[in-house]
Amino acid sequence: MASCDFFPDAGGIRPYRYRDGVLHLLDQRLLPTEEVWLEYRDCQGVAEAIRTMVVRGAPAIGIAAAFGAWFAARDIQAENFDGFWREFEQACATLAATRPTAVNLCWALERMKSLVRANALQPTVNLKIALEYEALAIAEEDLRINRALGRHGEPLLADGARILTHCNAGALATGGYGTALGVIRAAVSAGKQISVYADETRPWLQGARLTAWELQRDGIPVTLICDNMAGWLMAKGEIDGVIVGADRIAANGDTANKIGTYSVAVLAKEHGIPFYVAAPISTIDLTLADGSLIPIEERGEREVTHSGERRLAPEGVAVRNPAFDVTPARLISAIITEHGLARGDYRTRLAELVAKGR
Amino acid sequence: MASCDFFPDAGGIRPYRYRDGVLHLLDQRLLPTEEVWLEYRDCQGVAEAIRTMVVRGAPAIGIAAAFGAWFAARDIQAENFDGFWREFEQACATLAATRPTAVNLCWALERMKSLVRANALQPTVNLKIALEYEALAIAEEDLRINRALGRHGEPLLADGARILTHCNAGALATGGYGTALGVIRAAVSAGKQISVYADETRPWLQGARLTAWELQRDGIPVTLICDNMAGWLMAKGEIDGVIVGADRIAANGDTANKIGTYSVAVLAKEHGIPFYVAAPISTIDLTLADGSLIPIEERGEREVTHSGERRLAPEGVAVRNPAFDVTPARLISAIITEHGLARGDYRTRLAELVAKGR
Repeated sequence: MASCDFFPDAGGIRPYRYRDGVLHLLDQRLLPTEEVWLEYRDCQGVAEAIRTMVVRGAPAIGIAAAFGAWFAARDIQAENFDGFWREFEQACATLAATRPTAVNLCWALERMKSLVRANALQPTVNLKIALEYEALAIAEEDLRINRALGRHGEPLLADGARILTHCNAGALATGGYGTALGVIRAAVSAGKQISVYADETRPWLQGARLTAWELQRDGIPVTLICDNMAGWLMAKGEIDGVIVGADRIAANGDTANKIGTYSVAVLAKEHGIPFYVAAPISTIDLTLADGSLIPIEERGEREVTHSGERRLAPEGVAVRNPAFDVTPARLISAIITEHGLARGDYRTRLAELVAKGR
Repeated sequence: MASCDFFPDAGGIRPYRYRDGVLHLLDQRLLPTEEVWLEYRDCQGVAEAIRTMVVRGAPAIGIAAAFGAWFAARDIQAENFDGFWREFEQACATLAATRPTAVNLCWALERMKSLVRANALQPTVNLKIALEYEALAIAEEDLRINRALGRHGEPLLADGARILTHCNAGALATGGYGTALGVIRAAVSAGKQISVYADETRPWLQGARLTAWELQRDGIPVTLICDNMAGWLMAKGEIDGVIVGADRIAANGDTANKIGTYSVAVLAKEHGIPFYVAAPISTIDLTLADGSLIPIEERGEREVTHSGERRLAPEGVAVRNPAFDVTPARLISAIITEHGLARGDYRTRLAELVAKGR
């Protein structure tokens, strides 16, 4: 078994640790008031952690799913390939079904499955070893990807810029460093003064609880606002740019991201403010022609009607709770990936960037 | 002393009751889970109730302030007019300073002061009696105004319309019936099927706590959403119109209302959806040429960082909390008042409507 001592080389905030066959996840439901690490040793546990949002953020759930797939593989008793494959594929299907919108989840599982398919002649004991290393590779690569993405994106942010972000596309949403917040971190590392407005991001409050927390830790000035304040601050000239992450990007550049992103993009356009999406290549889904084909998860009412145990809304009220929305490509100034920027003709450029990543 | 037995003729939800020199306010901080009536017997208490939002909503705080002014008058010892006036004016200034944006507060106090000025030759005992009746008149008139406003506005809502509202411009925000929700109630009374999307309206959650509660009570279908979901529902074709209240309307039609209203108006424009403002004439401030002159209240951080006692955001994070924003007239399809509609050339038409109200 691999022994990776919590990635001591990586530094900074990370949503997971892995050592000696145990995945540790920072319980993101409890931040910022409690820092609790939960331990996972099997596939079902990881699936539940993704479903209940112990871990969230498209790249981070891809990483968690890869470890879940490895746990599943490790626990398969079958010694012949067909039996192993049947059980492994079923476990991957379980993991893939936990959250429908983020494509990184499917991407990571597909990568784990490809490795198995490519090594069908190997004894299963070898497959298991390879799968553990593959999960570790997916996790470590994500951190490198985000650093590269940050380098490509940071020239877009001017010194002194006041940048709005929505949800948390930071270290906590990824293997570390972050996508949208990675670009901000890279700009700060390049010596620029950047201050951030964080939308609190109802109902789950990723902005208030996670983005504010991780930027504060890094000493990057952050001001928390309610989602409905961003438009007014834009009108008052207090926001210079917007940068967000993505859960899935269709072939034409239409981008699914946390609910509310679309509204921010419309407001940015109204005020002539650039709107950037930062995401790894693994978020691009060339199989979908446009954003209308992206499945949008609807989550339970309780996220909206309650805060902890406290009821906010009257009993029995109807609730809508779409977890994501789709921002059309025409509202996006650029998509920042680890292989460079896409803008203008997204269909051609995204296909090129995906090809680079192969 | 007047003895008004809780306005038994009025019916429906009301945010206040008045009997035998005691003002009872429904504590809107505790709705919808608790219905607690607090009693007020003096001016300072009423000022505190407005400041801490026991009572909120532009017309309702106007009404509460009128009763506050009457309590102040009743308790003044001075028997000569000059002494009475000095103390009365000071009490009105205290009440006016509780919340800066809603002009109805000033309007109601100005009406109380006018009555005193017009009767300077009367003994103060008579002034006191007249002031109690004036406070009652302001309250009762507001209900009648809202019914008239509803009649003028309801033809704008088509049968089957799905209407978005932001904050609470309902019975709880007024003397009863409501402004924005009054128009919806009038449409329902006219036999139309209307369903309502209620923005929860962070940070104070007037939509989740008050609008959902009062529409549910009246059996009007209501679906609660987070503020950041409205744009996406518009893009999906699920919203046919928007109607909101107002805290102050400048001479050119620019409208201050609860924070987030401006964003909703921009989104409505982007999707070709009509955006209506419903407000009594007393909300129109012809002394301000445009919305840039409207003072915008900034409230404390805790409304954003906490839910009840529960901390949501990390300690020490910077917060912005503007309580209102200004929607430019160009984004408003019509302003609905008790004397009819304004649209197009707001400057001329609002001045006409104000003149009608005199």
